[in-house]
Amino acid sequence: MKIAYQGVPGAYSELAARALFGPDVVLLPHETFDAVFEAVEKKRADRGVVPVENSLAGSIHQNYDLFLLHPLKITAEIYGRVQHALLAPAGTKFAEVREVRSHPQALAQCSTFFAEHPHVRPVVWFDTAGAARDVAREIPEGVAAIASEYAGKLYGLKALRRNLQNRALNFTRFLSIARPGARAVGPEARKDTAFKTSLTFVPARNKPGVLHAVTGVFAGRGIDLTKIESRPDPEKPFDYRFFLDIAGAAQDAPVKNALEALAPLTRNLRVIGSYPRAELPTPRR
Amino acid sequence: MKIAYQGVPGAYSELAARALFGPDVVLLPHETFDAVFEAVEKKRADRGVVPVENSLAGSIHQNYDLFLLHPLKITAEIYGRVQHALLAPAGTKFAEVREVRSHPQALAQCSTFFAEHPHVRPVVWFDTAGAARDVAREIPEGVAAIASEYAGKLYGLKALRRNLQNRALNFTRFLSIARPGARAVGPEARKDTAFKTSLTFVPARNKPGVLHAVTGVFAGRGIDLTKIESRPDPEKPFDYRFFLDIAGAAQDAPVKNALEALAPLTRNLRVIGSYPRAELPTPRR
Repeated sequence: MKIAYQGVPGAYSELAARALFGPDVVLLPHETFDAVFEAVEKKRADRGVVPVENSLAGSIHQNYDLFLLHPLKITAEIYGRVQHALLAPAGTKFAEVREVRSHPQALAQCSTFFAEHPHVRPVVWFDTAGAARDVAREIPEGVAAIASEYAGKLYGLKALRRNLQNRALNFTRFLSIARPGARAVGPEARKDTAFKTSLTFVPARNKPGVLHAVTGVFAGRGIDLTKIESRPDPEKPFDYRFFLDIAGAAQDAPVKNALEALAPLTRNLRVIGSYPRAELPTPRR
Repeated sequence: MKIAYQGVPGAYSELAARALFGPDVVLLPHETFDAVFEAVEKKRADRGVVPVENSLAGSIHQNYDLFLLHPLKITAEIYGRVQHALLAPAGTKFAEVREVRSHPQALAQCSTFFAEHPHVRPVVWFDTAGAARDVAREIPEGVAAIASEYAGKLYGLKALRRNLQNRALNFTRFLSIARPGARAVGPEARKDTAFKTSLTFVPARNKPGVLHAVTGVFAGRGIDLTKIESRPDPEKPFDYRFFLDIAGAAQDAPVKNALEALAPLTRNLRVIGSYPRAELPTPRR
């Protein structure tokens, strides 16, 4: 089984892919999220694993938009815990660190560390694991990287500090994506758990009450709305497309019935996937 | 009147501040959005002007979060048209350009240009106008910047290409922020226009139907919901805080009444501002 992800080896997405599908998979790194979607669509990969939401930073909007460009479905979700480490080549002492490279999101999540160490300069890198890899390759003096401890091990760097992020509880939600006809494997085939269904639509008219009518379709059937997200329509400035996650499987009678009721209230309604619901991992600190 | 904004002179925020408050204002550039909020709170500036939403990229979440950290109110909104130009020192020919510096958002908005010119490398800079300023200072060979044509004029750069963005219609919504007691001036004091009210809250309980009950408070009173945005609660992973824009002024009877009905459904309900509603400018291409 081949799984595409964005980033270089050691990326948090790689950890999520392994946690979902186990050790016996071939992991294919890609430069961009778009390339991940394309690799799955063009059958170069069986699955893609992409982050869609972080508990501190919010949604990764680009990946929502990519579902509109690629006819793929969501087959599973998983919450990965994000624990950033300060990584440096062996021999580097913490007091020598003057510059820290990482992805802007990771730097932002460690802003307290930078505020407390004003002589350490955050430098934007394209990727967390990429920053670790490049620091290991170049061994620039006084330079460290922020990435997972796993990435540090992969590139032979030492963790000078662990849990560098502002808040100990930091999770990213990852989705597994597949071609529409793909058969469920591993955690996708779980039957012992509740389901979640992801869908997207544009409200039929931009008029008062339409969103209330939409939420009523679910509330009236006792269906929990676990997430609601709006994205601007690039063709029509400040018109919105919605992405919703609801509790339940698309083939369950209440959800099926709700989707039928939704049709006249919306345009371009599409179920992106119906998949076993994951739980937040219990942190062991 | 002193107005704080994020960026360097020539930033799109500066253009928005001038469009709102006219030419007779003192504009104070700041490095970060947080510094803009703080300058207003600490009375170093009378107003701040910050972007909150772009018609292609979506919300600028950080600025929503900053309203929770600073006791400021929204006093006005304006839609600014974003037209990116490719700027280079006089004498540079288009065919010589090998590298283009700009803010990641601006680079993303011009991705079609980069796809069509694969020999031109996009390089991330901290700011659009800052990229123009630095190209004008350093005059590095074969390097251009993406920023507004206004920034180009300010720094003496030539526009090699205009309207570089993928889509001609590209708007950013800016808000003016002030201390709670500030008296309305200029466009803030308009009486001839409809109003908009911005508010934020956490649903009282994370249970099925609460969002439907909230939207019903507005729908039942014929109040249009113009925007709904959810942000993760950093203390409680994947719990959400909502930011809503509704049609009408906070002192109007239906809105006042709706806010009272909202209280028992929510926690930490706060009206961030009630201000004259702006229209999207009609593009002249």
